[in-house]
Amino acid sequence: MTERRAVTASLLIIGNEILSGRTQDANLAHIAKELNELGIRMREVRVVPDDEAEIVEALNALRASYDYVFTTGGIGPTHDDITSACVAKAFGLPFGRHPEAERRLRAYYPPEKLNEARLKMAETPQGAELIDNPVSVAPGFRVENVYVLPGVPSIMRAMFEGLRPSLRGGEPVRSRTVTVYAPEGEVARPLAEVHDRHPDVEIGSYPFMRQDRFGTSLVFRSTDEGRIASAVDEILAFAKGRGIEVEEIF
Amino acid sequence: MTERRAVTASLLIIGNEILSGRTQDANLAHIAKELNELGIRMREVRVVPDDEAEIVEALNALRASYDYVFTTGGIGPTHDDITSACVAKAFGLPFGRHPEAERRLRAYYPPEKLNEARLKMAETPQGAELIDNPVSVAPGFRVENVYVLPGVPSIMRAMFEGLRPSLRGGEPVRSRTVTVYAPEGEVARPLAEVHDRHPDVEIGSYPFMRQDRFGTSLVFRSTDEGRIASAVDEILAFAKGRGIEVEEIF
Repeated sequence: MTERRAVTASLLIIGNEILSGRTQDANLAHIAKELNELGIRMREVRVVPDDEAEIVEALNALRASYDYVFTTGGIGPTHDDITSACVAKAFGLPFGRHPEAERRLRAYYPPEKLNEARLKMAETPQGAELIDNPVSVAPGFRVENVYVLPGVPSIMRAMFEGLRPSLRGGEPVRSRTVTVYAPEGEVARPLAEVHDRHPDVEIGSYPFMRQDRFGTSLVFRSTDEGRIASAVDEILAFAKGRGIEVEEIF
Repeated sequence: MTERRAVTASLLIIGNEILSGRTQDANLAHIAKELNELGIRMREVRVVPDDEAEIVEALNALRASYDYVFTTGGIGPTHDDITSACVAKAFGLPFGRHPEAERRLRAYYPPEKLNEARLKMAETPQGAELIDNPVSVAPGFRVENVYVLPGVPSIMRAMFEGLRPSLRGGEPVRSRTVTVYAPEGEVARPLAEVHDRHPDVEIGSYPFMRQDRFGTSLVFRSTDEGRIASAVDEILAFAKGRGIEVEEIF
């Protein structure tokens, strides 16, 4: 896999519910696709439980290794929501109420509804920059290259949308998908040869079986569309030579 | 979160297609639930690309930290399938054709179909123990506490099923779910109090909104059903006192 001056990201998913299988994560694929369009490559994902030591360790490992770190989960009002405090700890920053976050919560909730648990959602590491929440007000925040977002997918997506314009990617990665109706084991060798001649094109190979028919989806990715076209043409020529049916999806 | 002599596991998901958002992972939740029933707690998940250095580093970090490590993805016939070689590298073991794996592939494929790419699926670290594949023959394998499985969910599940009896868990974790029709911010404080009195019961809190109605699902988990019952009773009493509607799901 070759990448030129790639801008990289990682995602830290926080929550026992993901690790127990109770909840199926829906944020990874969404964030990955969004980042992809911005020319940012997701390079690693970790899922950790609601455990301070494990969250802090993962935060420190990831923020040192990637341009962007996104976290999802653990910023609600309950006792198991400890992400914000862990970010403060990871950065060695004081932790307390963010005046603007508190103002937003006070403007949203009637006074009798704004209890201590809800005010917990106004706590951030000192100096954090808020990330707007157009759905349910309680904000996320950013500290340096770490972006703290909620786990509920609909809210996370709305907040990510607002964040997008501030994220800076490298050259956007283009992709083309070609489906060949042959088992993966029969296209593996030509594919390796095409890859040898196009080391700058990432070629993924995903076998499938539909109604007893074997096929393989090939995904070509590169920042250079001409190089993708060259690699795809070689595979199409191989398939034609063998009488293998092909479908191309743009 | 308190756990008594927990047996732990981690999952390493290998594949660019997950990190690009092309493919939605379906193995995490399945393996997590299966392990849960066996009394094994999934404690960490990582997703890494098809990159040797990153796979080897993750393997070595995880196998040192958890009782079991499962990997999914990257054991097919194509150039981007490098998991098996990476496991050999992580353990410092020679890598080559496993005689029994080769025998199985030769018995399955007609000779003209058994090309070099497919024979790659017979390569394992030396001394690996095979994991049977009842669907498409090409086996997975185990080296020490690392279990190497394919990424295609239907095949992975069938292979995991065969593996199950050999996995040893601790005390199985019981759980009960109670849904309260109140926003999370209104149950957070009583919940924290119940948790203080039941530090041995893990209590997860998951807010939702259905047709403009706010609610929170509470998941109580412990190896001790009596302690779960005690915690649940306290929450039910709180809800009753406030006239909050409750649903219990067993």
